[in-house]
Amino acid sequence: MNNSFGTLFRATTFGESHGPALGVIVDGVPSGIPVDEAFIQKELDRRRPGQSAVSTARKESDRCEILSGVFEGVSTGTPIAILLRNGDQHSSDYANIAELFRPGHADYTYLKKYGIRDYRGGGRSSGRETAARVAAGAVAKLFLRESGISVRACASQIGKVKANPPFRWEEVEKNIVRSGDPAAAEKMILAVREAAGNKDSIGGIVSGEILGLPPGLGEPVFDKFDALLAHAFLSIGGVKGVEVGDGFAVAEKRGSENNDEMDPSGFLSNHAGGILGGISNGNTVTFRLAVKPTPSIASPQKTVNLRGEETVLEIVGRHDPCLVPRIVPVAEAMAALVVADLLLRNRAARVQD
Amino acid sequence: MNNSFGTLFRATTFGESHGPALGVIVDGVPSGIPVDEAFIQKELDRRRPGQSAVSTARKESDRCEILSGVFEGVSTGTPIAILLRNGDQHSSDYANIAELFRPGHADYTYLKKYGIRDYRGGGRSSGRETAARVAAGAVAKLFLRESGISVRACASQIGKVKANPPFRWEEVEKNIVRSGDPAAAEKMILAVREAAGNKDSIGGIVSGEILGLPPGLGEPVFDKFDALLAHAFLSIGGVKGVEVGDGFAVAEKRGSENNDEMDPSGFLSNHAGGILGGISNGNTVTFRLAVKPTPSIASPQKTVNLRGEETVLEIVGRHDPCLVPRIVPVAEAMAALVVADLLLRNRAARVQD
Amino acid sequence: MNNSFGTLFRATTFGESHGPALGVIVDGVPSGIPVDEAFIQKELDRRRPGQSAVSTARKESDRCEILSGVFEGVSTGTPIAILLRNGDQHSSDYANIAELFRPGHADYTYLKKYGIRDYRGGGRSSGRETAARVAAGAVAKLFLRESGISVRACASQIGKVKANPPFRWEEVEKNIVRSGDPAAAEKMILAVREAAGNKDSIGGIVSGEILGLPPGLGEPVFDKFDALLAHAFLSIGGVKGVEVGDGFAVAEKRGSENNDEMDPSGFLSNHAGGILGGISNGNTVTFRLAVKPTPSIASPQKTVNLRGEETVLEIVGRHDPCLVPRIVPVAEAMAALVVADLLLRNRAARVQD
Amino acid sequence: MNNSFGTLFRATTFGESHGPALGVIVDGVPSGIPVDEAFIQKELDRRRPGQSAVSTARKESDRCEILSGVFEGVSTGTPIAILLRNGDQHSSDYANIAELFRPGHADYTYLKKYGIRDYRGGGRSSGRETAARVAAGAVAKLFLRESGISVRACASQIGKVKANPPFRWEEVEKNIVRSGDPAAAEKMILAVREAAGNKDSIGGIVSGEILGLPPGLGEPVFDKFDALLAHAFLSIGGVKGVEVGDGFAVAEKRGSENNDEMDPSGFLSNHAGGILGGISNGNTVTFRLAVKPTPSIASPQKTVNLRGEETVLEIVGRHDPCLVPRIVPVAEAMAALVVADLLLRNRAARVQD
Repeated sequence: MNNSFGTLFRATTFGESHGPALGVIVDGVPSGIPVDEAFIQKELDRRRPGQSAVSTARKESDRCEILSGVFEGVSTGTPIAILLRNGDQHSSDYANIAELFRPGHADYTYLKKYGIRDYRGGGRSSGRETAARVAAGAVAKLFLRESGISVRACASQIGKVKANPPFRWEEVEKNIVRSGDPAAAEKMILAVREAAGNKDSIGGIVSGEILGLPPGLGEPVFDKFDALLAHAFLSIGGVKGVEVGDGFAVAEKRGSENNDEMDPSGFLSNHAGGILGGISNGNTVTFRLAVKPTPSIASPQKTVNLRGEETVLEIVGRHDPCLVPRIVPVAEAMAALVVADLLLRNRAARVQD
Repeated sequence: MNNSFGTLFRATTFGESHGPALGVIVDGVPSGIPVDEAFIQKELDRRRPGQSAVSTARKESDRCEILSGVFEGVSTGTPIAILLRNGDQHSSDYANIAELFRPGHADYTYLKKYGIRDYRGGGRSSGRETAARVAAGAVAKLFLRESGISVRACASQIGKVKANPPFRWEEVEKNIVRSGDPAAAEKMILAVREAAGNKDSIGGIVSGEILGLPPGLGEPVFDKFDALLAHAFLSIGGVKGVEVGDGFAVAEKRGSENNDEMDPSGFLSNHAGGILGGISNGNTVTFRLAVKPTPSIASPQKTVNLRGEETVLEIVGRHDPCLVPRIVPVAEAMAALVVADLLLRNRAARVQD
Repeated sequence: MNNSFGTLFRATTFGESHGPALGVIVDGVPSGIPVDEAFIQKELDRRRPGQSAVSTARKESDRCEILSGVFEGVSTGTPIAILLRNGDQHSSDYANIAELFRPGHADYTYLKKYGIRDYRGGGRSSGRETAARVAAGAVAKLFLRESGISVRACASQIGKVKANPPFRWEEVEKNIVRSGDPAAAEKMILAVREAAGNKDSIGGIVSGEILGLPPGLGEPVFDKFDALLAHAFLSIGGVKGVEVGDGFAVAEKRGSENNDEMDPSGFLSNHAGGILGGISNGNTVTFRLAVKPTPSIASPQKTVNLRGEETVLEIVGRHDPCLVPRIVPVAEAMAALVVADLLLRNRAARVQD
Repeated sequence: MNNSFGTLFRATTFGESHGPALGVIVDGVPSGIPVDEAFIQKELDRRRPGQSAVSTARKESDRCEILSGVFEGVSTGTPIAILLRNGDQHSSDYANIAELFRPGHADYTYLKKYGIRDYRGGGRSSGRETAARVAAGAVAKLFLRESGISVRACASQIGKVKANPPFRWEEVEKNIVRSGDPAAAEKMILAVREAAGNKDSIGGIVSGEILGLPPGLGEPVFDKFDALLAHAFLSIGGVKGVEVGDGFAVAEKRGSENNDEMDPSGFLSNHAGGILGGISNGNTVTFRLAVKPTPSIASPQKTVNLRGEETVLEIVGRHDPCLVPRIVPVAEAMAALVVADLLLRNRAARVQD
């Protein structure tokens, strides 16, 4: 354990990549929210493999089924369970990795922790696990919509190719790398293809923002808004860093440059990324995630087998050469879960009138 | 709420900077650990203001008193409460800020969240709150010591001055910026003084590592080791970004460069920073935190008062021109709390023989 | 929320009586436990409706499907999800109750809390919800078996008919009321039939015990063993009281009668019910639950409809005239969940050698 | 661990009976509540030893000090810490029990669990621990007062002497056993004295109720209102049973007798004790607690020492011959904590308008 995320609005996920199914229980969803199954499915389709020329050729339908918590199209306040059956998996693809540790994967650490591992497709450590997060995040988005809050993300860098801000959000779903900059998108696609052509993979950065936030979200002192976002993002496999607001750029800045001054119209800048002292200040929350290159590559790599003997591995399965485009909806989902939880928790902050 | 951190090894803190006292209850400390009060005091002294020429001139003794949970020098398994009385505070320093919002501070957001704020020195949002974390972290370090695990951190960058790795850890406490590179330390001190001389402040980066870890720590999927570290670090006021292992550098890397290959002797590199799939792999865990420049500066800044009217603020109190040296022990404390908790949680991972 | 129970060994349930399915995610199950699906099914069959002449005539197959967390018959340490599809329900039976509040049911309170309710069969407040608990409890029992711990319960009273201790545990599953006293069983069955014949229902008491416990389970001060048992049992619909050890009988006792003296062979009595200061003392833990008469009865009852108008209700569906026999396995399941969790939590109590 | 109680409104306590201090952090108190320190002190005085002829002769001032979370007399939303220094304790009274296990006490189980125990006065297992609960409960009561909710309890039985309902609540604090029936109070006092005169002790029952509740409090399915009350009450040392509403009396009842019918004026009876399906229905919540006779008695009792050798113990310290009068305010405090938490949690139940 722990396969739960959130305090009041809480997602609990289960499922291995090659078991019968994945799924999630979303507990704490307030009653009275229209739950649009088609929207949940659409979000899942954004994460689905096989969706484009730069993603894995694996086909997974990821058809969602709502099992509980919704009555006549509306949330009842009881837990919403969503089931995602696994399709016909190629377990045989993984027979050869049952006996060794794939570099960059969790094979070694799961075995060390549990003394046993489901080696088929990485089992619970598979990226497929994020499908359940996207389903939960879709429910969170439906809840946030009631309060006028939305989350969006895009690929802002792949390899050395950077998207030029300000991002053109309406273009993100129109290019297969989900770039916020259509001009950069072309180069990003080339970079991914070039890496794949070399039996390799490539990393990148996801940038995102949360819009429509009221001031006051975030629980001092340990459950600061940014602390929960960081927790959420680094819980996604392959993410190695996170920034809020100006992030690592603050290291070289002066206080006079970094402070966001105010006048009667509000804040005059947003270096803080919408969060002060761990609490939203009403500005847009901005964040960035560093995504590592896919560890599954076709090039030969040194590793050891279960008996500790040296061996060489060439991974021949179907894998995304770059994780960034498919992590975009996962990052949005995790951010939505954080905000939904904080919105509920904030209701307890004051004596009510 | 939430002023608790951790699941089994849990710290709950309280206290405002100008109230009677701060403190912490550390719950879940296993019985049988020698609790060395002098060690806790030494850790607090590392965080204490007024300790050097680059820190604030405020004097706080931060004398700790253990109130419970220790009997004849050994932990009993019951909660360890530690009290830190506040000394003679200059509340009058803050009279002028009662009526306005300091740029870069949590004044605005606390008021929006709670409808009331303790404006004396930032109240609960003061950096002084971290003293309780350091006390709790010291208890965690004493526990980790029993398992041969240790945590260390240093200033790796201040402004544009970077410490050159590998860090010389034995030098860290010998220079007043806690640099891991004695040569860089001199330039860092100059950079801090230069900023202060200009009525300004400066940011930086803290780097750290966790040594002696067994493989297996970290709870998939949401409480991954790195996710909890990120949560811990971004819960420290002024931290705007976090990296584990190669961090944001992974964006430009290929899988063949980033994967840590293995041979019978173990991992051949440590790009992952000691964590795979959210679980420690037995290597050193490495991390970095981006620290913003101190928001309290003596230069004039635009802001608004409680009535929304424009005003200009020059902060004349005693403030650190750079937070980095004093955040070093706080980062260590938070990392120690994360590891202590995961160590206990990991005991539940397997059927015991 | 909250649909989760437990800290480390945690069950999260979902499902309405007339929705597509019920189920549970059991998180925190240690790896390496043989997970016998047939055993889980057998436990579910003990709770299943339609199993005997004194239970409801409704037929539900309650066929369980394990969706995750088990690989080659053994737990992997990842969450075990269990699905129970709902069969062909008679939703039409409930059309007439959509507009009114059944006395003794949660119809009124769910509507007041959530502003909406799934009125089909009580929705989430249905006794059917306990099927997911029994499935989770079965997993807990499999885990406890590895440590030699077992839980058993029986009907000790139905109406005015009391079972005579000591209970004959091997007889419990041989009579349809699950009495611990075969002689009393006959009279209990008559009492149930007599109540049903009068279009009425009848209450009773479940008694149980936990065997094979090591000393040391229970977390002071709020999560005492007995406090968690009481929480667990009163979370079962229809339970109105709980006793541990001598229970309410202690009110009339002297300290000299109630204290369990010791000699070198151990405790000389067990008035405490195996728990001292909230921690198991190595003796058998004993408990009792008071179960109210089934609220659904065929006799006419005064109530109001959604518009607040007076009406009379005669419930004509298929209902158990006495809940006791079917609550027996539910009580066992909840006790098993408590013990499994405490067993894992106790591993964190001491520095390990 | 666990020394915390509650989800949003959470009390975390610490302290041993003969250590430097006890105390509590109350986290999650909404901002804007007048915090009346004199009221907290008054509640503590109700629990204080040495208050009457039927309580222990020990003198403890139990003077409370608020350390944080209150600014200008009002809660700020940050954690409220309350400190209770221990006075001059007679540790020497306990020298003789360091080497043996007192019957009915937690000496044996603490040692088995932790391998070490603070034997002075029972350490953490001392009844003195409840002082911190009363302080926290007083804060909860101040919060509930804002919503018109109150809690009250009294002694309803001591030994075989029963108070006759309806209780005369205005009389409770006027007699030293806190009986709800002044006539019974005299006999109760005699019963306590008679037990004490025989070097013995006596048990009893505390009855209580919660007034002014809105419908809707309680979180299905595991954190039902009654389940949390049961958890709360059985976490008090010496409590062996709990009832809500008609409690164990339901065992002998028919559904037609036990169901609370409704008419347009509301519920026509309150057998349910104000809770249906785990959710408050707007009626008064009623509860009862069984309190065991004080385990510390002056009569000789068989026990064993740390080496497992048989010995005889006569406890000569200053102990209450009956715990009931002093548990009354503790039970109220725990109930108030439950209600405060549920009130906050309920704010998350619905989409807000």
